[in-house]
Amino acid sequence: MAELKNTFGQSVAVTLFGESHGPAIGVVIDGLAPGIPVEEDFIRDQLTLRRPWGKLSTQRQESDLFQIVSGVFDGKTCGTPLTILIPNGDTKSRDYEKTRFLARPGHADYTAQMKYHGFQDYRGGGHFSGRITAALVAAGAVAISALAHRGIWLKTHILACAGVRDSSFAPEEQALKAQLEALRGSRFPVLDHAAGERMQAAAEAARQSRDSVGGVLETAVLGLPAGLGEPWFDTVEGVLAHALFSIPAVKGVEFGDGFALANLRGSAANDPLRMEKGRVVTGSNHNGGINGGITNGMPVVFRCGVKPTPSIFQPQQTVNMETGENVVLELEGRHDPMVVHRAAVVVDSVAALTLCDLLAMRLGVDWLAGR
Amino acid sequence: MAELKNTFGQSVAVTLFGESHGPAIGVVIDGLAPGIPVEEDFIRDQLTLRRPWGKLSTQRQESDLFQIVSGVFDGKTCGTPLTILIPNGDTKSRDYEKTRFLARPGHADYTAQMKYHGFQDYRGGGHFSGRITAALVAAGAVAISALAHRGIWLKTHILACAGVRDSSFAPEEQALKAQLEALRGSRFPVLDHAAGERMQAAAEAARQSRDSVGGVLETAVLGLPAGLGEPWFDTVEGVLAHALFSIPAVKGVEFGDGFALANLRGSAANDPLRMEKGRVVTGSNHNGGINGGITNGMPVVFRCGVKPTPSIFQPQQTVNMETGENVVLELEGRHDPMVVHRAAVVVDSVAALTLCDLLAMRLGVDWLAGR
Amino acid sequence: MAELKNTFGQSVAVTLFGESHGPAIGVVIDGLAPGIPVEEDFIRDQLTLRRPWGKLSTQRQESDLFQIVSGVFDGKTCGTPLTILIPNGDTKSRDYEKTRFLARPGHADYTAQMKYHGFQDYRGGGHFSGRITAALVAAGAVAISALAHRGIWLKTHILACAGVRDSSFAPEEQALKAQLEALRGSRFPVLDHAAGERMQAAAEAARQSRDSVGGVLETAVLGLPAGLGEPWFDTVEGVLAHALFSIPAVKGVEFGDGFALANLRGSAANDPLRMEKGRVVTGSNHNGGINGGITNGMPVVFRCGVKPTPSIFQPQQTVNMETGENVVLELEGRHDPMVVHRAAVVVDSVAALTLCDLLAMRLGVDWLAGR
Amino acid sequence: MAELKNTFGQSVAVTLFGESHGPAIGVVIDGLAPGIPVEEDFIRDQLTLRRPWGKLSTQRQESDLFQIVSGVFDGKTCGTPLTILIPNGDTKSRDYEKTRFLARPGHADYTAQMKYHGFQDYRGGGHFSGRITAALVAAGAVAISALAHRGIWLKTHILACAGVRDSSFAPEEQALKAQLEALRGSRFPVLDHAAGERMQAAAEAARQSRDSVGGVLETAVLGLPAGLGEPWFDTVEGVLAHALFSIPAVKGVEFGDGFALANLRGSAANDPLRMEKGRVVTGSNHNGGINGGITNGMPVVFRCGVKPTPSIFQPQQTVNMETGENVVLELEGRHDPMVVHRAAVVVDSVAALTLCDLLAMRLGVDWLAGR
Repeated sequence: MAELKNTFGQSVAVTLFGESHGPAIGVVIDGLAPGIPVEEDFIRDQLTLRRPWGKLSTQRQESDLFQIVSGVFDGKTCGTPLTILIPNGDTKSRDYEKTRFLARPGHADYTAQMKYHGFQDYRGGGHFSGRITAALVAAGAVAISALAHRGIWLKTHILACAGVRDSSFAPEEQALKAQLEALRGSRFPVLDHAAGERMQAAAEAARQSRDSVGGVLETAVLGLPAGLGEPWFDTVEGVLAHALFSIPAVKGVEFGDGFALANLRGSAANDPLRMEKGRVVTGSNHNGGINGGITNGMPVVFRCGVKPTPSIFQPQQTVNMETGENVVLELEGRHDPMVVHRAAVVVDSVAALTLCDLLAMRLGVDWLAGR
Repeated sequence: MAELKNTFGQSVAVTLFGESHGPAIGVVIDGLAPGIPVEEDFIRDQLTLRRPWGKLSTQRQESDLFQIVSGVFDGKTCGTPLTILIPNGDTKSRDYEKTRFLARPGHADYTAQMKYHGFQDYRGGGHFSGRITAALVAAGAVAISALAHRGIWLKTHILACAGVRDSSFAPEEQALKAQLEALRGSRFPVLDHAAGERMQAAAEAARQSRDSVGGVLETAVLGLPAGLGEPWFDTVEGVLAHALFSIPAVKGVEFGDGFALANLRGSAANDPLRMEKGRVVTGSNHNGGINGGITNGMPVVFRCGVKPTPSIFQPQQTVNMETGENVVLELEGRHDPMVVHRAAVVVDSVAALTLCDLLAMRLGVDWLAGR
Repeated sequence: MAELKNTFGQSVAVTLFGESHGPAIGVVIDGLAPGIPVEEDFIRDQLTLRRPWGKLSTQRQESDLFQIVSGVFDGKTCGTPLTILIPNGDTKSRDYEKTRFLARPGHADYTAQMKYHGFQDYRGGGHFSGRITAALVAAGAVAISALAHRGIWLKTHILACAGVRDSSFAPEEQALKAQLEALRGSRFPVLDHAAGERMQAAAEAARQSRDSVGGVLETAVLGLPAGLGEPWFDTVEGVLAHALFSIPAVKGVEFGDGFALANLRGSAANDPLRMEKGRVVTGSNHNGGINGGITNGMPVVFRCGVKPTPSIFQPQQTVNMETGENVVLELEGRHDPMVVHRAAVVVDSVAALTLCDLLAMRLGVDWLAGR
Repeated sequence: MAELKNTFGQSVAVTLFGESHGPAIGVVIDGLAPGIPVEEDFIRDQLTLRRPWGKLSTQRQESDLFQIVSGVFDGKTCGTPLTILIPNGDTKSRDYEKTRFLARPGHADYTAQMKYHGFQDYRGGGHFSGRITAALVAAGAVAISALAHRGIWLKTHILACAGVRDSSFAPEEQALKAQLEALRGSRFPVLDHAAGERMQAAAEAARQSRDSVGGVLETAVLGLPAGLGEPWFDTVEGVLAHALFSIPAVKGVEFGDGFALANLRGSAANDPLRMEKGRVVTGSNHNGGINGGITNGMPVVFRCGVKPTPSIFQPQQTVNMETGENVVLELEGRHDPMVVHRAAVVVDSVAALTLCDLLAMRLGVDWLAGR
């Protein structure tokens, strides 16, 4: 799984670019098999799932208009780098001048200063901005579509938010498939809608306290062939986690029962195998569809822990990076008290792109196009 | 962070090879700066920390004698690929013939079959064997040494095991440093020795029930410069997690407060910054020394969730991969009811190798040798 | 030197995208140190060197207007991916419909069909078009500038064309430096202007015969530090050649005296060393500044063999890829009877980008910005 | 085509290690499909082709005994890293003490000093030694075998040496195949045996003058499918050249008619296409089976220019790297007046490994094993 700073993937590789307040952000996907249909409507729908809405999101109005500038011909991938450009609009860059040298706690301001020596574009988080994930979502839409044509489905729901917990995914494959379908198109993806409403109420309460909330996202992937991944380094867990930790605010990733396995005994954690209709299945899925780093054909299930949005509207202790003084910062501007729900589609996108790469590495470039 | 199946790293890259019951296992570390002292005694000491001992471990007697076959001249790295070979001994391969086609639940037997089409070396787990981690530990010893010469220290303790919890790492740097030093050389690394004894007792109880236990490992790294890592894809979290998921039985990785952050509000999760003796520090370390994927100069803290050893001595439901029949498997042989304590030094090793790469990528090849 | 299809480089990596008749072509350069001045005028000047002019070039009028959409802030690199977009204009796509299925000899039409299964954008060569090198030149301009700030200069001249030979580069460094400076800004870069005129006359004669010509480009790089490159695989020769063979029509690459060394004896091919003003130099430079794959501090000199432009206006035997019939093709449209002179700046660009990567890998990311 | 210093390849990757006078040299091949037969006799035969023999070679007696320490089970690849170890014997390290600080002209002594700061193993060229190519040949034997099982054949002959020229490869495929077969097993591979004898006589004359000779190697690959390679960066030319320049003394690489194309007009250089028995073929092969960087199904033909062996027994001007003095060096010891004939099998090996990678990247891991 080769990785070059802003490029991820080997046979199918994604390159991200752009700053929040620059002319545009965008993404190049290289290595997609030729002949995959690219549906602009589906890209638009996926971008809608990520776009701010309601009281819980920043009031920045992003149109997320995008342009495909290469790699698509007659509505299908042509096998060459597919580039999607999303121009930036509605940027209020002057907002950022006043606090330019004040490192916002929980943000990357201070680490950007240390890495880029003050040359970074500080406006709106620059290249660190959550805005960049729009490009990932656009690219991910193409990957999600391609996987669906090959019978591979994935979807993420909000397992927990602000202390409220959603139902878990069903252990049984048919039931799980129905759950994934029910989540389709939801801008606040939960299995239990009552839990979803309690989450939103709790997030709204935090917002009114000028505070923010985090959560846990749970993802299931159905239909992956057994035999993907490598025993060392390019384990399916390692490769997916590598990509998922790029999503801003993700601070933990776990597979199957994850950290909870630490408290189980082996007799409870092992998944018994059996033949069922000519296919090997497991009776439980504590290992999340992965053994020894390699898929076993059962659903791949993982969770991402998302920290609360660092932008809050309370006084915070910090430093002025220019003068070296200790100061108190009070943020203004447009910010999200909660991003967990908007991050769900980003998780789907990042996972889909990563899985396309794992599949192409093992089965050849043309497999994704059904050849 | 380029990754090629059994190779990990870009400027400092590690290649693993070997099967549990083949002639030897080994590792190639490429890209280490020339002139780094290689102390064979320290490699030996680190291998001792990983070697089975006592009732909680397999009775396989591994001598872990190793030979450096390239890359070291006059006791120092010469800048070329450093290869360490560990011959295999005390292998009882006949033990594995009987159960050759029976997929052990929780193990990689079935996924290996799907990936390697039956050509894998099935004896003792082959290339999936925990034995391979001895090569990682040998390589890691060189990296840990090199980092120590540059003022970077790391150490892992057993935070939890079989339901028993150790103390957590101290938030304050001086206290943390003392804790890391106290852990040095321990074959059952805990901060609270009473907790350690309760862990061992609980594991022994599981062993007597022909069962096994898992746990959580917590690691702290002191002395890393700020500014390592990338905003997307090669985040420090992503790169470390990618490598850490290679360690057999690791099913979750989290940084700072990790999944617990999902329940905090932003006001509690943000780490306030302040100038202290001319240096920017944070008042708390909920983000584990990493913001926006990049180190901030505070201790990097992470945890690995380790599932219970899958080899248990109870009847288990599985399939015969040759005949396709459902069967009941009862394992015999030499196995560990617990590997968490032995995995601690593997975590240190994998993390140290990964950090060497991140440092060399940013600061140049020779930085590790103090040039 | 990691390489992912349309991405080249490891610490400094270039990603190319675009089709000749799509909305735009472009390039992402990732990993440039923050703080490097980006002069749009210099990019424009370099693009001018590549742009068609006079009778020897296609009559397609490319404006080569470009837009920097990311990675530059306040006129300097900010350390994040630098993206340059060049919109396509003046495309006469209808010209290509008639001959869509006729594989042009010497072109990539048939190989594209085999690789992309008919989904490629066939208009104007699509992603294979020489037009894509405009993006390489724009990116290369940034790299050439950055190298110049660090005292590294490179320049290419037409050593041979249509059977006419230019003077060779001077063996002595000061004289060579003067030659490189004299080449600056030339759209037909030769050391001997009389030879240049004979080349143009010979090319014009070919054009009047509805034919085309090729040539040899020779490049010198001054000021590279000794010690770059690797003994195996990432030799300076290997890495540069890998990149240079991307330039359309390049079919041979040689270093120092190259193939001519095959006829020398060792006593004539070895470059004697001596101390001169506290620095090790060689008395001759048959090895082109590289020994054992690693720079020795002398000028790096290499040559690219460029085949004649494959687009000629004579009847040619070929196949109809749709019907499988043997047919005779007579090309029409806008084509270059000669591209060697326009390729010189492409060679400079590709070499500069590659050298930036080799330097950053060895000396750290910030070296290029003088830190 | 990812490349990490001493590792080359992406899906099939080779890692080289070892110093000439260390305990052993070796190679790890990762990513070979499981189930490929590994014939130790064939590896032995290939090593014989590289081993010094007769008056034209060093008198160092290398036994080239090798041990496969991982990746093979029951005589077949198991899909995991295949490691071959070749212990060093007959090393006379004391020979090198006297001249330790004297940089041999044409060798890598000075560049190694600049890269490794004096920590390199200087004995017998260390990691730069031609001896390391034995490991490449052992690995290449496995690749050559695997390709042959898939109908892909390649072989190299000495096209020119010491001013004497062999016949060229036949343009017609059947005749070419017969030529490749005739070359099999030859330790001095030429098509015209009379020319071969003149070459050896000329080389012997050079030896008696205490001098050395170089040459040109020409390689043909038959049976490659059309559609391999990429339009930019990972062109088949670029990837092969990258690898081939690793072979010590190679200073030029060209494809098809190579540099000679520079003097042709387009009408002479283009290869006309035609249907023949349901398959597209070209009437000539000036482009060496590659158009636009991608294979067209015709034989891939390339040439490597090899400089004369730098070890000669005449007084040479050089510097003492410790004292900085100008000195005259007179070499003693065991050296080859000619290596071109021994390099032929190294070219075959490097090319075969590279082609396995290109095939696996495009067609999937299992293609090489016929799945």
